[in-house]
Amino acid sequence: MNPSNPAHPPSTKKGRILSGMKPTGQLHLGHLEGVLRNWVRLQHDYELFACVVDWHALTSRYEETKEVRADTLEVAIDYMAAGLDPERCTLFVQSDVKEHAELHLLLSMITPQGWLDRVPTYKEHQEALSGERLSYGLYGYPVLMAADILVYKANVVPVGRDQLPHLEFARELCRRFNRLYGEVFPEPDGLLEERADVLPGLDGRKMSKSYGNTIAIADGPDVIRQKVMQMFTDPQKIRRNDPGRPEICPVYMWQRVFQPEKEEEVATGCRAGTLGCVADKRDLAEAVIRAMEPIHSRRNELRNNLDYVHQVLREGAERAREVAHATMQDVREAMGGIGLRL
Amino acid sequence: MNPSNPAHPPSTKKGRILSGMKPTGQLHLGHLEGVLRNWVRLQHDYELFACVVDWHALTSRYEETKEVRADTLEVAIDYMAAGLDPERCTLFVQSDVKEHAELHLLLSMITPQGWLDRVPTYKEHQEALSGERLSYGLYGYPVLMAADILVYKANVVPVGRDQLPHLEFARELCRRFNRLYGEVFPEPDGLLEERADVLPGLDGRKMSKSYGNTIAIADGPDVIRQKVMQMFTDPQKIRRNDPGRPEICPVYMWQRVFQPEKEEEVATGCRAGTLGCVADKRDLAEAVIRAMEPIHSRRNELRNNLDYVHQVLREGAERAREVAHATMQDVREAMGGIGLRL
Repeated sequence: MNPSNPAHPPSTKKGRILSGMKPTGQLHLGHLEGVLRNWVRLQHDYELFACVVDWHALTSRYEETKEVRADTLEVAIDYMAAGLDPERCTLFVQSDVKEHAELHLLLSMITPQGWLDRVPTYKEHQEALSGERLSYGLYGYPVLMAADILVYKANVVPVGRDQLPHLEFARELCRRFNRLYGEVFPEPDGLLEERADVLPGLDGRKMSKSYGNTIAIADGPDVIRQKVMQMFTDPQKIRRNDPGRPEICPVYMWQRVFQPEKEEEVATGCRAGTLGCVADKRDLAEAVIRAMEPIHSRRNELRNNLDYVHQVLREGAERAREVAHATMQDVREAMGGIGLRL
Repeated sequence: MNPSNPAHPPSTKKGRILSGMKPTGQLHLGHLEGVLRNWVRLQHDYELFACVVDWHALTSRYEETKEVRADTLEVAIDYMAAGLDPERCTLFVQSDVKEHAELHLLLSMITPQGWLDRVPTYKEHQEALSGERLSYGLYGYPVLMAADILVYKANVVPVGRDQLPHLEFARELCRRFNRLYGEVFPEPDGLLEERADVLPGLDGRKMSKSYGNTIAIADGPDVIRQKVMQMFTDPQKIRRNDPGRPEICPVYMWQRVFQPEKEEEVATGCRAGTLGCVADKRDLAEAVIRAMEPIHSRRNELRNNLDYVHQVLREGAERAREVAHATMQDVREAMGGIGLRL
């Protein structure tokens, strides 16, 4: 074990994590509070590989790829603004590490089609999409995700509840590879993102760009104020003094995240009819703005110093490639016949 | 146009060819006479990329990969022994050029599943194979073949009649890519291997390792004699002097290939009952041995100089990577969003 070689995680860390997000537009506060804050904590205890999975974006965006490059950069900036520290973790872009594609191809050969047919999201796609939009790559999405994880021999993968079937798929594929060719990959454990849905969308549904109910990490104070003022509240609380039900109010759920110390005060005031929705929202908006201030400040610094962001991603890709390259050597040796060792 | 840069074929050549064979065991005389002799001719007029497609071998051999490496080397030796000249063409192994895997992944995103469902060989696989043997990679075989061709911007692909649907698939995928992202790839034309089945197997069926009716390129004189003497002939010609029907006799078909100058003499003697099958076979065996002598001699030289073979494949891989790398730059630019140009 050589602690300076990322192929061998230093023993002081609990293990290696692979995590990634698709560049399908701007990240929002749901990503920040539900996912990124968790990664930022994890980078201290684990060897974290945080990746922008731009190839994955093509499963849904193959007809509109012009924005993927810009979105990829924005996601990387969001990662760093949220607190992922290039000195503590490896930040990189998936398409800079060709070994993901190579392992994807090799794993494709041992992936029974029956396994893919049973993936729940694929069944949803089959119902929702038709014709040319149902692509071979979309069908094989879980194979690519498995390659992303296994190519770093990651032990741990933070996942939302809806991704658990994909992680289970990666674990099954890992076992199948090890059974066919010998123990190459550790079986990755899922680390459930308990807070993934801690912030509902402005309208109370799941926060999602497709619902148009988000606040982006990049949104500044004016946009935050305007959007918070549009948030849904208890529909039975019509006049200021009507008693409200905080347990069904998105504004209250956000207050618990952004001002946990005020949780009791807000709930009591809402129920008693002494706190009106407008005042509640004004108070929340300022709390969100305060919470976002350091992140916006880092974001601006990074946006004004794109050379530095590129350098971080370039160095991250080098580190990632080093680990992925070592894994692929092991894979080729285990499979015995692939590559001539020229 | 820079003639020294393989990304731009020198204008003195008719175009660029990609051709390849799977390392699924030893190549046989059917491959030699039906395919390799044609490639050897083509290397003079075209810029030929001749590849051993070892990743493809995994579509059928994923459980028995230990032999793929040895078979890959043997196929490369067969290529060279047959007359493919490293000074005239680019000889390499598919898995040495990762860009095949990268383009395969990108093409997978724009390949409608419906197209794959309609590929005739896939329907056959569905009927013949079951459970885990029907893999995602086998299903996507035509996507990988398309990537093999397009990553070199090949204009021409020599194909057997049974591979025409795969070439048509590659052409369709080429058009779809160009339509979505702009003209990157030339549409590859098929060059039908007219002589692909010129040599039937020892038993008169198609020559195929799975039928056990082959003579390997590597088989020496004793094995050739023994196997030729086992060849099937007209079953109605029982005694030496019985009249035979050369048009249904595998020995006659071989004679036409190995001793075309004797075609008339053999046919007449067979029909008249003056030429017996045993004498006919003895004569054929010696003709095959004579024809194979220079190839065996080169084979032995190469087998005794594996460092040279490795060097040829290493240099071939470098040239292939240079071209494939240039293509992938064009692909990423055309798709607009892939890769950050760090």
